[in-house]
Amino acid sequence: MQKVLIANRGEIAVRIIRACHEQDLQTVAVYSTVDANAMHVKMADQSVCIGPANPQDSYLNQDNIIQAALMTGADAIHPGYGFLSENAEFAKLCEVQGITFIGPHSDTIALLGDKAQAREVMQDADVPVIPGSREGFTELDTALFQANEIGYPVMLKAAAGGGGKGMRMIHTEDQLRHEFPLAKGEAQQAFGNPEMYLEKFIVRPRHIEVQILADTYGNTVSLGERDCSLQQYHQKVMEEAPSSIDHKTRYEMLSTARRAAKALKFLGAGTIEFLYAGPSQFYFMEMNTRIQVEHPITEFITGTDLVAAQLHIAAGMKLAITQEEVALNGYALECRITATVPGNIKGLHLPGGNGVRVDTALYDGYQVPANYDALLAKVITYAPTRAIAVKKMQVAIEETVIEGVGTNLDFLYQLLNNNDFLANNFDIEFIERLTNGGNANE
Amino acid sequence: MQKVLIANRGEIAVRIIRACHEQDLQTVAVYSTVDANAMHVKMADQSVCIGPANPQDSYLNQDNIIQAALMTGADAIHPGYGFLSENAEFAKLCEVQGITFIGPHSDTIALLGDKAQAREVMQDADVPVIPGSREGFTELDTALFQANEIGYPVMLKAAAGGGGKGMRMIHTEDQLRHEFPLAKGEAQQAFGNPEMYLEKFIVRPRHIEVQILADTYGNTVSLGERDCSLQQYHQKVMEEAPSSIDHKTRYEMLSTARRAAKALKFLGAGTIEFLYAGPSQFYFMEMNTRIQVEHPITEFITGTDLVAAQLHIAAGMKLAITQEEVALNGYALECRITATVPGNIKGLHLPGGNGVRVDTALYDGYQVPANYDALLAKVITYAPTRAIAVKKMQVAIEETVIEGVGTNLDFLYQLLNNNDFLANNFDIEFIERLTNGGNANE
Repeated sequence: MQKVLIANRGEIAVRIIRACHEQDLQTVAVYSTVDANAMHVKMADQSVCIGPANPQDSYLNQDNIIQAALMTGADAIHPGYGFLSENAEFAKLCEVQGITFIGPHSDTIALLGDKAQAREVMQDADVPVIPGSREGFTELDTALFQANEIGYPVMLKAAAGGGGKGMRMIHTEDQLRHEFPLAKGEAQQAFGNPEMYLEKFIVRPRHIEVQILADTYGNTVSLGERDCSLQQYHQKVMEEAPSSIDHKTRYEMLSTARRAAKALKFLGAGTIEFLYAGPSQFYFMEMNTRIQVEHPITEFITGTDLVAAQLHIAAGMKLAITQEEVALNGYALECRITATVPGNIKGLHLPGGNGVRVDTALYDGYQVPANYDALLAKVITYAPTRAIAVKKMQVAIEETVIEGVGTNLDFLYQLLNNNDFLANNFDIEFIERLTNGGNANE
Repeated sequence: MQKVLIANRGEIAVRIIRACHEQDLQTVAVYSTVDANAMHVKMADQSVCIGPANPQDSYLNQDNIIQAALMTGADAIHPGYGFLSENAEFAKLCEVQGITFIGPHSDTIALLGDKAQAREVMQDADVPVIPGSREGFTELDTALFQANEIGYPVMLKAAAGGGGKGMRMIHTEDQLRHEFPLAKGEAQQAFGNPEMYLEKFIVRPRHIEVQILADTYGNTVSLGERDCSLQQYHQKVMEEAPSSIDHKTRYEMLSTARRAAKALKFLGAGTIEFLYAGPSQFYFMEMNTRIQVEHPITEFITGTDLVAAQLHIAAGMKLAITQEEVALNGYALECRITATVPGNIKGLHLPGGNGVRVDTALYDGYQVPANYDALLAKVITYAPTRAIAVKKMQVAIEETVIEGVGTNLDFLYQLLNNNDFLANNFDIEFIERLTNGGNANE
């Protein structure tokens, strides 16, 4: 591996370019026409324009990206996150062209893209999935039997469709008897198919995910977990590591995650996402087979450079760390500063100093395009205790100045001062309740 | 302690303001007329102009600073480094005014200001000082006897003066017999006093210093050591932690440093500086009784926030860490980016991301005044090995853009790529030899 093309933009492209240079790897940036002045273009050794602003024509344009790699002699492609990072077809295309795709084999990506198949592989590997029906049914007796096995509350859903049609939250057997025929009728009307299925309803769960690294020698290690429950519109807003789960659950979750990764023949850096319902109760949601936005918090608490590790694994090197050597130290917190209104950065001051890391592609004068992800900067704080990490973040966010665009800085600051957040008392619906007014935990 | 006045400017004032805010302490900035738009003024809760640009009239103006504290109701003063930070008179003035001086008692500062007295206290505490004459003499026999005791090579110096007059480096007894009368004559002519003294000549020593924290409960801990040998014109250029000394010497040096700090009844954050000649051979040079420029490398390898600790100690709190709990992890490196030509910052890009910390008071458009210390920014890298920390620094320095002023960035980059530096093969004269042309270690 000599030259890496980074098939991405923004802060993650900057992050990857730095990691490549730290390993004396040459870098090729790709960019759309609106990104000609972007930071990642300035920082890479070479750059290639791959199309117009529309992501379909540039950052998702597989042929143009492969062409750029062949043209510049890049022997590897790092996909970052989003865009083509979990596209099995693109990974396959790289394999066919003899270009190292920095990620798992295309078969693993394809398998995970099929939710039903992934669920089966997980069950075969004794990885708990959200309890539910294996297939659709139409009989009330089946519903009563399964609901009893799963345990109330359950979600009754139409097998054929979504959008809430035919969907009911069921708390008791009596309620199921009453609602089942109505829901079935709704499903029949909406989707022309009366089949129903049941799924355990998890009450106010947390989103807790495990960082995995796996090399080509069969070594698979977990690097602690992250709590990513603070989400708005299904986007993570703030993440922390480690989470507040107890030691026993942590041990179970981390070993389960390693088992899952091994069952998937996973290679590289990835994340197993769980829904956490309570001590020793957690369920596999999905695996992300790429670097994640929130990876820096794990880097802080483990001292492991995850992007460097991705490059090492792709170059055929062994993991530098064994499971026994992984130690979790301190607490890290990440805030995602996002643009609410695009524009031209006219004044910029980002925080810094002890225990503060900033990952960004912003600079004074930069025109934030409206075409892409709204992430402007990630601020990460690290301290010996959660309380100090939070306090550092309050000070860091208060210090931050980003003028010329609308941002979520005020919202982040409110969240950082919310009493339930401070008490580590939240779940994946917390921000939704909060922004719908009133006390988020009533 | 409620409100802290920061009697300083630049990056260290910014560093202290952040630490204060992280502890919910109000902050008061002081500034000279040329610093009205400085970062520390923007960041503090209140600010007071204390005089014109000339440091004597502003940042060294004790009365104006005390006045600013009284006027704003600040109950503590953090002096930073330089300026009044080691001025016993100023510390005393704070004490008299009932303002907490964030540092040791004025008596400790005064004692250390008297080099001969400090040397005696150290000797009484079994802290090795550079072997040498206790007092001046004029007899050759005394010279021969003492040189034999100290061990060759020795420096023969005029007791009454400096500047190289009467100074000789002596390698053998024969040479001493020959040079002694000549040097004595020179001293008589230059200073009207023929008295001479001898000091051990340390061949190519390293400058290695130990970080100390001490609270009001009698707890004194050492937080590892730093190698600060890379100096130019007696200014540190690049520092690293830990140093390359062996474990046994480290153990000896750290316990010696704690003994020294206890003998001095030291309180707060301070540094014991040693000249290191070889395994188990090191000599006390001086103690700095304040936070040092290079403190972040210790913060990285120990996970201890030294400025936060200063505030805690000043507020009468116990140290949060015991000696047994101090663990050194990883390697940290600091580069001091300095201005060679002052001016107006017209383009600024500072590095960031994994394992990179920047402490600075720069911003785009900032006018760098010519009146003060030339330090523009400190870049600190941290990694599991020295090699990776160095590589990270090479990439970080290469990425840095500071336009509108002259800087030492090119020099730092050369140094970071020097083979002897990479091999950790240098001493306090290294940069001098290097910049005088040729191979620095010939």
